[in-house]
Amino acid sequence: MNRRWMIAIGAVLAVAVIGVGTFNFVASKTEAVEGPAITLSADETDPEAFKLLYPAHYDSWAKTAEMHEPVLKYGSSEKKKSRLDQFPYMRTLWAGYGFSKEYNEARGHMYTLDDTLGGNGTEGTLRINEKTNLTCMYCKSAEVPGLIAQMGDAFFNTKLLEGDNQELFKHPISCSDCHNPTTMELRITRPALIEAMARIGKPVEKATRQEMRSLVCAQCHVEYFFNPNDANKVYFPWDKGFEPEDMYAYYEELGFSDWTHPQTGGGMLKAQHPEFEMFQGSVHQRAGLSCADCHMPYMTQGNTKISSHWLTSPFRTFEQSCTQCHKESFEEMGARVLHTQDRVKEALDRAGTANEAAILAIEKAIQAGVDEETLNKARALHREAQFYWDLASAENSFGFHNPQKFLETIADSIDLARQAELLVTQAMNGK
Amino acid sequence: MNRRWMIAIGAVLAVAVIGVGTFNFVASKTEAVEGPAITLSADETDPEAFKLLYPAHYDSWAKTAEMHEPVLKYGSSEKKKSRLDQFPYMRTLWAGYGFSKEYNEARGHMYTLDDTLGGNGTEGTLRINEKTNLTCMYCKSAEVPGLIAQMGDAFFNTKLLEGDNQELFKHPISCSDCHNPTTMELRITRPALIEAMARIGKPVEKATRQEMRSLVCAQCHVEYFFNPNDANKVYFPWDKGFEPEDMYAYYEELGFSDWTHPQTGGGMLKAQHPEFEMFQGSVHQRAGLSCADCHMPYMTQGNTKISSHWLTSPFRTFEQSCTQCHKESFEEMGARVLHTQDRVKEALDRAGTANEAAILAIEKAIQAGVDEETLNKARALHREAQFYWDLASAENSFGFHNPQKFLETIADSIDLARQAELLVTQAMNGK
Repeated sequence: MNRRWMIAIGAVLAVAVIGVGTFNFVASKTEAVEGPAITLSADETDPEAFKLLYPAHYDSWAKTAEMHEPVLKYGSSEKKKSRLDQFPYMRTLWAGYGFSKEYNEARGHMYTLDDTLGGNGTEGTLRINEKTNLTCMYCKSAEVPGLIAQMGDAFFNTKLLEGDNQELFKHPISCSDCHNPTTMELRITRPALIEAMARIGKPVEKATRQEMRSLVCAQCHVEYFFNPNDANKVYFPWDKGFEPEDMYAYYEELGFSDWTHPQTGGGMLKAQHPEFEMFQGSVHQRAGLSCADCHMPYMTQGNTKISSHWLTSPFRTFEQSCTQCHKESFEEMGARVLHTQDRVKEALDRAGTANEAAILAIEKAIQAGVDEETLNKARALHREAQFYWDLASAENSFGFHNPQKFLETIADSIDLARQAELLVTQAMNGK
Repeated sequence: MNRRWMIAIGAVLAVAVIGVGTFNFVASKTEAVEGPAITLSADETDPEAFKLLYPAHYDSWAKTAEMHEPVLKYGSSEKKKSRLDQFPYMRTLWAGYGFSKEYNEARGHMYTLDDTLGGNGTEGTLRINEKTNLTCMYCKSAEVPGLIAQMGDAFFNTKLLEGDNQELFKHPISCSDCHNPTTMELRITRPALIEAMARIGKPVEKATRQEMRSLVCAQCHVEYFFNPNDANKVYFPWDKGFEPEDMYAYYEELGFSDWTHPQTGGGMLKAQHPEFEMFQGSVHQRAGLSCADCHMPYMTQGNTKISSHWLTSPFRTFEQSCTQCHKESFEEMGARVLHTQDRVKEALDRAGTANEAAILAIEKAIQAGVDEETLNKARALHREAQFYWDLASAENSFGFHNPQKFLETIADSIDLARQAELLVTQAMNGK
């Protein structure tokens, strides 16, 4: 009820835990030997505590800290490897928005805190500033569900850089985000997914185990926004469906924009990693597979068989991930995947370039005094175009999860962006 | 050597055969009962003769005359169902070329003569005129290989409407086009395929039986052109590869155009049904399947098990074509295919519309006096754009054969067409 009071408790708790130990594997290992716990408390968030009971699972999760080996052509995990440098047009597309300051290759779950707040030799992200709410940690820390339970809607409206608020977050995305610590059953801890699935009539409480093996990932690997009509809470735009045009229609109806583009004056949408949405309707999804079937295959760890918690590209667990169904060789399958990713990359660059051209054309048209009606039509085309490009670009598979849906979406983006450019270019005649 | 002499022989032979009997199934059936032949002569082309020895295969081939049942959303076989009416932009894209006069849904092999020269209650196509060479019958009649053997290169330079030349063609595409009449072994009868495969180092003589089960189809279900540097013979543009951009690069190097677009003055390429090329690299092709595996499944005909010669959509032979590998229901699989086809149709319309807009913009720029250098750049962009659209549009699967390659190709087309439009629109500023 009293938000300030709850924040204070959170801060006290945070300081207390920090006193016990920083995120230090060596120290934790020693502790584990000294005094193992038999059961975990229901609000346990420390992966070291889970390690006592599930050392093999923990060890596989700890591999999310691995980066370079084997190097992947697309989506390799590398420290501060800038995507802005790889795709320079992104700086124009996101001008005026945080992503134009820093946007890097994603790293494993163990880095979710280091790569946002900084730590362990990594600088925090430039995307955090004094306006940033705790919301931006929604998918970065195991403490988030507990904090939301304590703070309620205040969580979404409290500044991250104020006071010691950064210290509220102790552990990266880890065991308790997906598992009930007392039963180890899969669970959904992020309210946004629970609410979004309830709104579309597929309550997570009724999900099968196989569905849960995707839904736990869908807590974060989705497109989302902060809903100004509901206390800036995290929302997933799924009420009209999972297709890119369904999500766009949702945003249109809401009249929502993430930011205004300084060169065009248009209200823009920033899309985020829609792995779950793009996977819908894919060959693998329709074959009944879950995220975990490929990304968490069963593996032998010492003398135990466990579901891997490495959570990496199936390229790195090819034998366990792919050969349960596919009989082709790694070389054959790998070549196929890379072919898809190469072509999707090419198409993404076409769309990115087209969107950049649209921005520059609209900017020029504004300077030349083209009428507002025409400008607004062009802005609307560009807004939709860039959202489609962004959905495809932000998704972390470079098309693999659903090549067809990627290419449809990118084709739409190219056409809409070029139409935006054409509209203002035509209006420039006589100016 | 003496072309005129060979044509004369051809004509005499033609008249002789016409005397024996027209293309009349009832009459032929009676003949079959009266005097069955035990072996076929090496140059047999009459499907009725094959029927005597292979009645079950014949009956399945005769089903290519079936049209409406079951009706398919895409590519249904219907008499004179105009695609120009379904896709009105085609008239603009092909202005000045035969396809803008008439372009219909494809019908089965048994109609290849009726739908070109006319017959059995069907008017011939408006695409034939006094300039049309016999070449246009290359894939329409079983007599073609014999005529080429007799006439040599003259075949490609003899007018179809002169004298009784239409009478040279007696039987539609049928048994002898793919089978050696004496051994019934698969064979390639069209020189263009033999030559094209030899040029890329994959001589058909060395093809496996499984490869032959696609190559017999690739005699006709491919992109081709009439090579002005080699007696206007039919050529397949595969020297640089099967990808759309490989074929385009081939045409560019050759400096080849099918016609000049009257509104743009640009040299254009007309693409034809590249089923074989688009199939390359697809999931089904990489799984080792041939055309025949899906389009000619093994079926029980009375008490005989034969490879079906119906040559229709696998939608119509779902159980035999698909369920050997796929365990999903017809409803599930059908919905998947239709989803792909719906999205490819949508993308094709985007590309068609963009190409139409490019043509109109170039036309307008010519009228406004835009400089030739700019016009030529726009023409080059549009030429490439329309070739890609046409490859995807002319292919007879609406994307099913290789959804990814279709959508890549269409995305490229959209972007290039819009760039052509932009280029001249920008140049109009100040005009």
